[in-house]
Amino acid sequence: MSNGKENAYFSSDINDRERACFEVGIKLGALYHILCGMPISSNSNVIESVEKGIEASISCQPYVISVKINVNRDKIQGDKSTAFDYDEITGKLITATIVLEFNSVEITAKVDWIEELNYPLMFIEKIRNKS
Amino acid sequence: MSNGKENAYFSSDINDRERACFEVGIKLGALYHILCGMPISSNSNVIESVEKGIEASISCQPYVISVKINVNRDKIQGDKSTAFDYDEITGKLITATIVLEFNSVEITAKVDWIEELNYPLMFIEKIRNKS
Amino acid sequence: MSNGKENAYFSSDINDRERACFEVGIKLGALYHILCGMPISSNSNVIESVEKGIEASISCQPYVISVKINVNRDKIQGDKSTAFDYDEITGKLITATIVLEFNSVEITAKVDWIEELNYPLMFIEKIRNKS
Amino acid sequence: MSNGKENAYFSSDINDRERACFEVGIKLGALYHILCGMPISSNSNVIESVEKGIEASISCQPYVISVKINVNRDKIQGDKSTAFDYDEITGKLITATIVLEFNSVEITAKVDWIEELNYPLMFIEKIRNKS
Repeated sequence: MSNGKENAYFSSDINDRERACFEVGIKLGALYHILCGMPISSNSNVIESVEKGIEASISCQPYVISVKINVNRDKIQGDKSTAFDYDEITGKLITATIVLEFNSVEITAKVDWIEELNYPLMFIEKIRNKS
Repeated sequence: MSNGKENAYFSSDINDRERACFEVGIKLGALYHILCGMPISSNSNVIESVEKGIEASISCQPYVISVKINVNRDKIQGDKSTAFDYDEITGKLITATIVLEFNSVEITAKVDWIEELNYPLMFIEKIRNKS
Repeated sequence: MSNGKENAYFSSDINDRERACFEVGIKLGALYHILCGMPISSNSNVIESVEKGIEASISCQPYVISVKINVNRDKIQGDKSTAFDYDEITGKLITATIVLEFNSVEITAKVDWIEELNYPLMFIEKIRNKS
Repeated sequence: MSNGKENAYFSSDINDRERACFEVGIKLGALYHILCGMPISSNSNVIESVEKGIEASISCQPYVISVKINVNRDKIQGDKSTAFDYDEITGKLITATIVLEFNSVEITAKVDWIEELNYPLMFIEKIRNKS
């Protein structure tokens, strides 16, 4: 996939699982901060276009296998009945899942709004060795 | 379109043309800073998805009639032949046109990379009274 | 200030007041979308550093005379009593004032959260001819 | 530091080193995408304010011990000799180091522009068990 030169910059005691955790963290941090502040309405075409646009963008990043974004339709306020009747994306609205592979390690991580934490938690849902 | 309460916050000597200029400026500033830093590749599906996603988002903003974004395909580096072979959106890659109406004024404004200025210039292309 | 080449890209019927309105709109749109999503806590050193950082950045933009940002201390949640006890900047927290000059026109514009609109309104507070 | 409820969302086979790698990746992804697109000039007060502002913001995130940002002074173009003579932050200009602790694991990670990769590489410089 890559020419491998980048690995020389990493501390030599980082194994593939650790590297996969690092890489998927980067992508969640990027995805979240690209989405935050984007105007959005409750129109489903608008929501789908925004979701697909950011999914396509994050998919360009190294080792990413798939990205699925879900802007929470139930929480979006605003159907553009007036000019100011729309919303902006914040952590409360974002659910996303990223699957990434680094060498033989496949990792699935998520960001989701967790009510009991009052926080948009990023967490690792699954990690496994493919071989 | 709006309930008109917002107008009370504006200096009373602002006319509709001036207000249209202000409103379209806001949208160009927003569009530009949402796009900057987004990962992108030369894959046309990726480019189109990113363009449509941000177009849909900016279209939610007040008084916007249409938004057309064109990420410059000729300048994008990276076809994902390796993991790191992709680009990020900067001012050099962005062309966009926004059409907006405020009361009877229709305004068309653009952002485009201007080589002679070495700058992503935002400018008003056309303004007219519809009535 | 500038070499004037940029003016050739503008529709020829735009006067200085209209241009000032356009330019200050751009800066408000930029400021807002740079701020949105930034982590913040109720620590006053953190708030002041964030405010000054974005003020300095926006001050680089064309024709800007001054920028004053005020992240609303009363609304920020989180004093870092736990790892997750901090907030992120959204429109509800942002107040900012930009003063800008284009030729002889001086303009003051603001973004502020307006409760009755449930909206972070950007508006022109004052515009005057200096000469 | 935290109430520990967040750990229940993670796959149970994630150890502290892996978690530290994940957490520091998130912060680098966030830092990078907050910085990208910010206006900047070669004025050292501007640069320092921007650096300190984003450092303060990222320092609010969970488990972060320190953040040091260095916008590359040698590469910034523009001293504001004209209105358009300034730059915007892109990956080519960003160097940053984040130190983070998760339980007994201390990790140091960086983002830096690597010429041979033509890429703003994020990498783990050091990871160690404090106890």
